[in-house]
Amino acid sequence: MGDDRSTKTSKTNCKRLSETNVGDLLDSVDAFLFDCDGVIWKGDTLIDGVPQTLEMLRSKGKKLVFVTNNSSKSRKQNAHKFQSLGIQVTEEEIFSSSFAAAMYLKVNEFPPEKKVYVIGGEGIIEELKLAGFTGIGGPEDGKKTVQLKANTFFEHDKSVGAVVVGIDPYINYYKLQYGTLCIRENPGCIFIATNRDATGNMTDLQEWPGAGCMVAAICGSTQKEPIVVGKPSTFLMEFLQKKYNIPTGKMCMVGDRLDTDILFGQNAGCRTLLVLSGVTSQSTLEDPSNHIQPEFYTNQISDIFDLINHE
Amino acid sequence: MGDDRSTKTSKTNCKRLSETNVGDLLDSVDAFLFDCDGVIWKGDTLIDGVPQTLEMLRSKGKKLVFVTNNSSKSRKQNAHKFQSLGIQVTEEEIFSSSFAAAMYLKVNEFPPEKKVYVIGGEGIIEELKLAGFTGIGGPEDGKKTVQLKANTFFEHDKSVGAVVVGIDPYINYYKLQYGTLCIRENPGCIFIATNRDATGNMTDLQEWPGAGCMVAAICGSTQKEPIVVGKPSTFLMEFLQKKYNIPTGKMCMVGDRLDTDILFGQNAGCRTLLVLSGVTSQSTLEDPSNHIQPEFYTNQISDIFDLINHE
Repeated sequence: MGDDRSTKTSKTNCKRLSETNVGDLLDSVDAFLFDCDGVIWKGDTLIDGVPQTLEMLRSKGKKLVFVTNNSSKSRKQNAHKFQSLGIQVTEEEIFSSSFAAAMYLKVNEFPPEKKVYVIGGEGIIEELKLAGFTGIGGPEDGKKTVQLKANTFFEHDKSVGAVVVGIDPYINYYKLQYGTLCIRENPGCIFIATNRDATGNMTDLQEWPGAGCMVAAICGSTQKEPIVVGKPSTFLMEFLQKKYNIPTGKMCMVGDRLDTDILFGQNAGCRTLLVLSGVTSQSTLEDPSNHIQPEFYTNQISDIFDLINHE
Repeated sequence: MGDDRSTKTSKTNCKRLSETNVGDLLDSVDAFLFDCDGVIWKGDTLIDGVPQTLEMLRSKGKKLVFVTNNSSKSRKQNAHKFQSLGIQVTEEEIFSSSFAAAMYLKVNEFPPEKKVYVIGGEGIIEELKLAGFTGIGGPEDGKKTVQLKANTFFEHDKSVGAVVVGIDPYINYYKLQYGTLCIRENPGCIFIATNRDATGNMTDLQEWPGAGCMVAAICGSTQKEPIVVGKPSTFLMEFLQKKYNIPTGKMCMVGDRLDTDILFGQNAGCRTLLVLSGVTSQSTLEDPSNHIQPEFYTNQISDIFDLINHE
């Protein structure tokens, strides 16, 4: 097959985090944005060394923010998860794609008298409610079935003005038809995707179809493309900037996914650090077909702690 | 908003079927290829004037072929449907996308000892069996649920070498994970879509999410694109040509969908006739955003009968 040493040796051009560059990174960054799954925890298990690393960063005056595409939980539910793992994080430090969906409707002055049909989890319904909107569907429609007799007519609520789609392990034909009819038949109905991740960590041992699966299904039946509010879209960035008043060049996005986390950081103009504790392996990072290069990479976030202490 | 009369008057450049052109069309065509839903029937109701039109065409020595993207039925089940509506059609005259999926595996020498995982109806399982293959999944997996506890592991059959996806009103997370794991983890596993129609006629009064919805869901979770065997792919054409030995220029594809039927006919080099008795309205045909123009259009296939008799 010829000599392909040239491609095999074309390693990544990003830098491994080391004793010589970690100090500079820390000095030049005011806020660290962390993805959660694959960075802070894997499923329900905390990744080694996370608490002392976060504590060290806080002690150095760094702002910590947690940006997650997992829409099944609300910010409150996410904060509970942190607490149950022994990490003190407040709701206000969490930016989830469920929150992003509600905020998108708010900043775009979605009429509160209109309803929002949800394909996804309780977290979306909860964030909508906190923002003053009425979400219908969601977990409630998980056990609904359809009648497929010649003369049955599937009714849908004409006051639905938005459909929000996130990861949904209880996806069914009822929800697909409901969401499709709203988007296709309700004038002006908007189609929001919390995110388009191909996979989601529903259990610890495997990956499962992610929100990208359910979102694509609705794209397939409506032939419409969604507005994406989670990573890599930078929609959440304006909230972050308003809250912390830190320029994006002084932020560092830390994540395990190239096409969401690192791309999100780069899209927003942040510094970027890839950790290999989640879905991306070093060989994927170094594969010639990968075109997303973070500024730095390391095994896991506790390396920041270890390297600083050996500096 | 400016003067947009120029676009509003840009009507279709295809011809309405008329007394002056119907004779020429009939004389120059040896085989008529009909779509079924929206052309022959709507749901379970025969469209007016179909039996006498088909009979007249047969009496003039025309070959009749029925090419349907509906994968939920096998050819045998489709033939039964014709008979139940009072039309004599044999299995051999029917080319369904379920049959196309089985034939794709056959012509590509798919190893019969490997299994095929099916997201879709009984028709696919039946056609696979007739072709000597073992289909698993399908309707049997419609009531299966998933365990989403941290330590559960979802097992899948490593001997699955192909996943076939068609319209499936019993779509669920179990099937999506099963199909995704086969495509992602079984070496060389191929991904076949019966078709990618956005909508399907599951009941008489409405459209429902079609195979395009389930296919897109699997694309979303695997980030792979399928091999499409139904319309508008011309895969079935080689079987048609082998069987009837008629050049495609002497065939006329009659259908109600621009992006499947008419495109299929044009892709294969056939004459094309759009009927307005199904999903496409005259205004859709004439809309400036529509770029698929059939050679002829008419209200319904019985117009052929009426126009010939008034010629």
